[in-house]
Amino acid sequence: MFKVGIITCSDLGAMGQREDTSGALIKEMAPQINAQIVKYVVLPDDRDRIADTLRQWADGGEIDLILTTGGTGLGPRDVTPEATLSVIERVVPGLPEAMRRASMEKTPMWMLSRQVAGTKGRCLIINLPGSPKGVKECLEAILPSLPHALELLKGVESEHKAHHGIR
Amino acid sequence: MFKVGIITCSDLGAMGQREDTSGALIKEMAPQINAQIVKYVVLPDDRDRIADTLRQWADGGEIDLILTTGGTGLGPRDVTPEATLSVIERVVPGLPEAMRRASMEKTPMWMLSRQVAGTKGRCLIINLPGSPKGVKECLEAILPSLPHALELLKGVESEHKAHHGIR
Amino acid sequence: MFKVGIITCSDLGAMGQREDTSGALIKEMAPQINAQIVKYVVLPDDRDRIADTLRQWADGGEIDLILTTGGTGLGPRDVTPEATLSVIERVVPGLPEAMRRASMEKTPMWMLSRQVAGTKGRCLIINLPGSPKGVKECLEAILPSLPHALELLKGVESEHKAHHGIR
Repeated sequence: MFKVGIITCSDLGAMGQREDTSGALIKEMAPQINAQIVKYVVLPDDRDRIADTLRQWADGGEIDLILTTGGTGLGPRDVTPEATLSVIERVVPGLPEAMRRASMEKTPMWMLSRQVAGTKGRCLIINLPGSPKGVKECLEAILPSLPHALELLKGVESEHKAHHGIR
Repeated sequence: MFKVGIITCSDLGAMGQREDTSGALIKEMAPQINAQIVKYVVLPDDRDRIADTLRQWADGGEIDLILTTGGTGLGPRDVTPEATLSVIERVVPGLPEAMRRASMEKTPMWMLSRQVAGTKGRCLIINLPGSPKGVKECLEAILPSLPHALELLKGVESEHKAHHGIR
Repeated sequence: MFKVGIITCSDLGAMGQREDTSGALIKEMAPQINAQIVKYVVLPDDRDRIADTLRQWADGGEIDLILTTGGTGLGPRDVTPEATLSVIERVVPGLPEAMRRASMEKTPMWMLSRQVAGTKGRCLIINLPGSPKGVKECLEAILPSLPHALELLKGVESEHKAHHGIR
C-alpha cells in the first residue's frame, strides 16, 4: 500500500471560494494504484508555500508519492512547476511527456501544460493539471508505471528490474 | 492584436552576408495569429547579446511574444536556447515537443533540434529553427495554441480556462 | 571515423560482480555509425566519479561521443543523468525523447527513463539505459541522427546544413 499526499494549488480554493473537485477525484482514483491518501492540503498559488510543503512531506519519510493539482498553466499565478523544480533532486521527464501525450489528440492546448515530475529522497512528486478532466486523463496515462516507479524508488529489486537490467 | 518581436540569430546575417528569409517568413505568417510585428533585429550568435535583447524586450512591457530564429542546432556557435534559458522564469516544454513532433516524420534530424520556450513576466519567448522550411513547419505546429497561450499569460480568464479549470 | 568513449555505470559491475553485457553490445554496434571505441571504463553509481570522467574525456579533445549505460532509472543509486547534467553546457532534449519513443509501444516503463543528452565543448554525451535490450532499442532509435550530429558539433558545414539552413 503506497502512501500519497495531495496538494491542491488554487488561490480560490485556499480562500474557500472554490470546491476542490480535482483533489476529490484524486482521492477517488487512489485505490487503482493501491494508494492510501495520508495527507491533503489546499494552498494558494504561492511558490514558497508550495515548495515548503513539498519539502516537509518528502523529508518526513512517510509519504511515497505527492500529487499536486493546479497551477501548471500559463496564468500569471501558475507556479506549481517552479515550486516543484526548486525541490526535486532528480527529474523524471517521461512522466510529463506521457501526460501531454494523453491530451494530444484532444486539444492543441496540451502544448501549454507545464507539469513536471521528479524525486526528492525516496519520494516521487508529480504535478497534475487543475481540472478534474485533466486530472483523470493524466492520472490514467501514468498509472501503469506508478507501482513500479514507487518500488524502484524504495530500492525494491523487482522482477522487471532483474529482467530489464536497470542497475 | 498581439505584439510580436523577432530576433534572427545568425553570424552571417548580422554581418549583412545572408538575407534573412526566415525572419521575412515569420513576418508573413504573423497575421495568422492576429499578430503585429513591432520589433525586429538580426544578432550574431552571441549568447550575451541575445539574452540582453530578450531581457529588454520582455521587460519593456510592449511585446507579448518574442520569436527567435536560428542558433538552435549543434553547431559550435549555436547558443540561442542557452540565451533563452538564462532569461526565462518559467519553461513551457510542450511547445518544443510539439515543434519536434512536427518534423518527426520528415527527418531523423528532428532529434537534434534544441529549441526551448518559456515566459519572462507576461512575455512568451519561443525559439524557432533557422531555416524557412523549419520556421514554417514549427510555427504551423504551435499556432493553434498561441492565441490562448498569450491570453492566459495576460491573465485573461478565457472560456477555455473556465471549461478546463486551469486555475 | 568517430571516436567514442563508453562509461558503464554499475555498482555491481565496478566490483567485478556483474558482466558488462551492455558495454559489450555498444562496442558491437559501434561500426554502424562508423565509430571506433577509444576509451572504456566501468564506474560505480557515484555522481562525482561519473561527472569527473565525463569532464576529463570531453575536455581531452580526443573523444567525439561519450555513451553511458546504466544508472538512468529511479533506483536510489541511479545518478547518471544528474552527473551528466552537471557537466554538459548545452542540452539536446530530442535525443532522449527519441529514445523514450522507441520503447513507448513496448512497455509503460518508458515513462521512467531519465536519460539526458547534451554537449560539452565539441563532445556529445548521451545516456543509454542499463539493459542490453534497452541499449539496443535506444541506440537504434538515435543512430540515424548521430553522424550528422557529430559533424555539426565539429563545425563541419554539411550538405544538410546548407539545405536546411541551420546557421
